[in-house]
Amino acid sequence: MAGYAREDLTPEQIVEQRELYLPFTQAIRDLVDAGIRTTVSPEEIRAAQAEIEAITARLRSSQIEGAYGVRFDASGNGRAWGNSVIGVRNAIAPPLVVEHDPSGRTWSDFHLGAAYEGPPTLVHGGVSALILDQMLGHAAGAGGKPGMTATLTLTYRRGTPLGDLRAEAWIERSEGIKTWAKGHILGPDGVCVEAEGLFVLPKWARPGVAARQAAHPEARPSFFE
Amino acid sequence: MAGYAREDLTPEQIVEQRELYLPFTQAIRDLVDAGIRTTVSPEEIRAAQAEIEAITARLRSSQIEGAYGVRFDASGNGRAWGNSVIGVRNAIAPPLVVEHDPSGRTWSDFHLGAAYEGPPTLVHGGVSALILDQMLGHAAGAGGKPGMTATLTLTYRRGTPLGDLRAEAWIERSEGIKTWAKGHILGPDGVCVEAEGLFVLPKWARPGVAARQAAHPEARPSFFE
Repeated sequence: MAGYAREDLTPEQIVEQRELYLPFTQAIRDLVDAGIRTTVSPEEIRAAQAEIEAITARLRSSQIEGAYGVRFDASGNGRAWGNSVIGVRNAIAPPLVVEHDPSGRTWSDFHLGAAYEGPPTLVHGGVSALILDQMLGHAAGAGGKPGMTATLTLTYRRGTPLGDLRAEAWIERSEGIKTWAKGHILGPDGVCVEAEGLFVLPKWARPGVAARQAAHPEARPSFFE
Repeated sequence: MAGYAREDLTPEQIVEQRELYLPFTQAIRDLVDAGIRTTVSPEEIRAAQAEIEAITARLRSSQIEGAYGVRFDASGNGRAWGNSVIGVRNAIAPPLVVEHDPSGRTWSDFHLGAAYEGPPTLVHGGVSALILDQMLGHAAGAGGKPGMTATLTLTYRRGTPLGDLRAEAWIERSEGIKTWAKGHILGPDGVCVEAEGLFVLPKWARPGVAARQAAHPEARPSFFE
């Protein structure tokens, strides 16, 4: 299926790749932040641009076609390293490191800087939606009920300040292919944004998920992480 | 107020800044994409990382404190160049170029690549939420009724493919400080995601917005763009 790949990397090779790409992607993330905030001269901006373009050309001399997708290892765990929220190779992702228990309870502590701004000094309301969509979907998957978002409702209680934040999510209930999840983002003064969503396992994904869950019952969360 | 700044740039200086920062930020955006997709050797990854870190250090030798905020020129127009969706200096932003008419009808054609992936080959559901939050808020502001998101509900009709997309938004109705807006994202096969939201002008922002609208009735959209 498009976007899914089986890579028979050993656990050691995955650790090596993570150790290689985490600091590399963090360097790009820092550059994104500096690009917003820098006040150096036009000449320095143009010089930096030329160097960045040269680095990009070298990186593109060998690259995959299209987006990263999900790459599975032999133990049935998928790596969504291109994902916009958790992708360890995606500089757009903060990235969230999401923890979970088997009931689907899911949590993450993270930091949002200048790149995530909407109203001045505050997190963009849509960035909160992005993070909560990921967290609720992760909760559904961690509870063994993966699905794609069918509906998502956000309620904004107060402005979410840029800085250190926490997100939490959990499964409310589940019926067959449908899972209802809830969650929120916590700032220094308490809950800033609440979310509830319905996640549905699409028909095309059901045979694959069922087979994978049978073969690898411990692989969590599943598939749409 | 924190995050708001008055900069008395001339229209020519703003054009110059835009022409300087647009290609610079685009270069960082391309690097983000290449960082996800590259398959060059570990040695080349490490060499690129060191160069990127050196560029970032030079850019940081002179930078603003904190996030970009909104910078107003003398004609009352605000530049939200750090914004996560439309910010011309934010490499996380696609960036959307949003067009609008005075009724609040708002539209944008844009492209999403590998950095915006959720399920393989598809736009992250939360990225669609991020874009629609911006579009609906923009519609409210373009119609003269700016506000911060109070609630936002997304309905996902089909997977949104990465690639060329269009977003549209409009005001449904407005009562005092409250504005209800709707919108959607269109892919090659029609509507992929629908959104409706309630936008409310917070108390602390009312005097400033009223004064600015009185002084600059033509400045659109207002404030929370």
